[in-house]
Amino acid sequence: MPAGAPQCRILNGRPNEDMAAKTYDVVGIGNAIVDIIARCDDAFLSKRDLDKGFMRLIDADDAASLYEEMGPATERSGGSVANSIAGLASFGASCGFIGRVAADQFGGIFRHDIRSLGIEYATEPAVDGEPTARCLILVTPDGERTMNTFLGASVDLTAADIDPHLIGAAKFVYLEGYLFDKDAAKSAFHEAARLAKESGAKVALSLSDPFCVDRHREDFRALVKDGADIVFANEKEITSLYETNTFLEAADAALQDCEMAVLTRSEAGSLIVSNGEATEIPADPVSQVVDATGAGDLYAAGFLYGLARRLPLETCGRLGSLAAAEAISHIGARPETDLVELAKSRGLLP
Amino acid sequence: MPAGAPQCRILNGRPNEDMAAKTYDVVGIGNAIVDIIARCDDAFLSKRDLDKGFMRLIDADDAASLYEEMGPATERSGGSVANSIAGLASFGASCGFIGRVAADQFGGIFRHDIRSLGIEYATEPAVDGEPTARCLILVTPDGERTMNTFLGASVDLTAADIDPHLIGAAKFVYLEGYLFDKDAAKSAFHEAARLAKESGAKVALSLSDPFCVDRHREDFRALVKDGADIVFANEKEITSLYETNTFLEAADAALQDCEMAVLTRSEAGSLIVSNGEATEIPADPVSQVVDATGAGDLYAAGFLYGLARRLPLETCGRLGSLAAAEAISHIGARPETDLVELAKSRGLLP
Repeated sequence: MPAGAPQCRILNGRPNEDMAAKTYDVVGIGNAIVDIIARCDDAFLSKRDLDKGFMRLIDADDAASLYEEMGPATERSGGSVANSIAGLASFGASCGFIGRVAADQFGGIFRHDIRSLGIEYATEPAVDGEPTARCLILVTPDGERTMNTFLGASVDLTAADIDPHLIGAAKFVYLEGYLFDKDAAKSAFHEAARLAKESGAKVALSLSDPFCVDRHREDFRALVKDGADIVFANEKEITSLYETNTFLEAADAALQDCEMAVLTRSEAGSLIVSNGEATEIPADPVSQVVDATGAGDLYAAGFLYGLARRLPLETCGRLGSLAAAEAISHIGARPETDLVELAKSRGLLP
Repeated sequence: MPAGAPQCRILNGRPNEDMAAKTYDVVGIGNAIVDIIARCDDAFLSKRDLDKGFMRLIDADDAASLYEEMGPATERSGGSVANSIAGLASFGASCGFIGRVAADQFGGIFRHDIRSLGIEYATEPAVDGEPTARCLILVTPDGERTMNTFLGASVDLTAADIDPHLIGAAKFVYLEGYLFDKDAAKSAFHEAARLAKESGAKVALSLSDPFCVDRHREDFRALVKDGADIVFANEKEITSLYETNTFLEAADAALQDCEMAVLTRSEAGSLIVSNGEATEIPADPVSQVVDATGAGDLYAAGFLYGLARRLPLETCGRLGSLAAAEAISHIGARPETDLVELAKSRGLLP
């Protein structure tokens, strides 16, 4: 790092001892979803008026009929913040996750996958009501993913599920914007933010999706202003949040509201704005975009890992780019390569 | 093809009109299984006394405890003959499949995946009893797969499930040796062979696994001698079947018993013995063995596609090698590339 480059002040503002005593680098709260991933061509999307690259919510009937029409699929655990937490675990971070599944086979898949990574996960499965959430992901030949989410049991998350001990033991609490889509889950979200503040954890928030921002703009703005220390967003999300014409105006607005905004721009890399300074990070080169699912989630994983380890901001961003590129290079949003080894091979970690 | 090279006589022995009237190129009968695929190192296998590269049967308790210990996984439809049928569909063949799932989420995955390929599949799901079969597949860094199969609902297949209309409309009926592992399924198997013979369909049999051959040697020998026209086996399976010391002795013995033996030897390619002649087929080069799961199943897919299209034997074998190489190049046993396009690009199909 060149002398004078921006340092991460997010943790440096607090006494070191406080953070050293924390058991978990990051505790994530989000939708607990199984991804059902199939390839399709562009005509399949346009015939069904599906907006390429975006997420839409669907009900059980829509999910059944779209699934019927889709091609053969692969199932993997997903969920935006859950993907980030899986990425953090791959970097060697200690993590926890809170999110609701049902007591069914897909719920078993989700629980297995997250626990097998050494992540603390103890949210009780729902025994009545909707089945485990699923996201029907259509991957076009350009690698872009179009997501159709049936929220199922994940919206049964309530404030009572937010374990104060888990939150109290976290350096960072990472919240999924998608949870704002249902009121019960939103209350869980606010409870988590409150507990995080109480225990001195930093609150990071993912805006998740421009349509999601559109649906909940005022709530998000209030949270970014009052509850969140760090906001993760892509270009469309942050300009939607502040209703600005340009990316830089939006970045500027974000900086008025919170300590740090981490703004991703696909192949144009990312911009970190913090303490009045901006740090530009290039994207990692990818030989072929196989499936963009999870690129943003994994960027956040690398970035938060760097923050939790008090690395320079530029390194945090480069770890994010590295993890995003790994996610893009294969089908599915969870990392398939040991990210700490990958980061070492690139000289980003000792 | 050089002049004088062996032609496929399997279909040529029958009047063309008979076969032209058949709706399905191949109808497969096998276990209906969802694969749960995770990576592991060699130490994970040796600690649990698991024989690398083989399949073992496990009960529900073993399945639960092994799953608990496994790393994060990907779920995909599997089953040996079901994989072959999926491969055949990717080549553009018209196919049917018979195999039992339960009325649960994994059963829904299996049914969706096979139907979405345009394959006729109408076996009623079991509503009581065991859940859908699953195979816990451990993939080591060398790409070798070690399979642990909980047969679940797939063993509830009975003779009553063998739809005579489907069998009657098939050019080839392809039977999975693994079905021999349970008596009820075995009776379904014999019923299918009987119906196939009655309707003039050729019967192809996969020996599936050397341990499976070991468990049912006499039954397999009787079927190869009396019921099967074509046998698919790898080197270990065929030498186990005939208890010979060498591969060539086993190939010779097979030729006494059935019209054609198609014998695969991993990277050494394959040998087709038919009508007293042997045709050697090289393996397709693979830049990296990612996951060997399904290599044999997809070889059979390519080969049977060639037979059903009355292509020269050498082309049948090359289509097998091509499909096997595709399967090896990614995680999971079902093809991820359009095999007919791939074959065209290699000049194997017009």
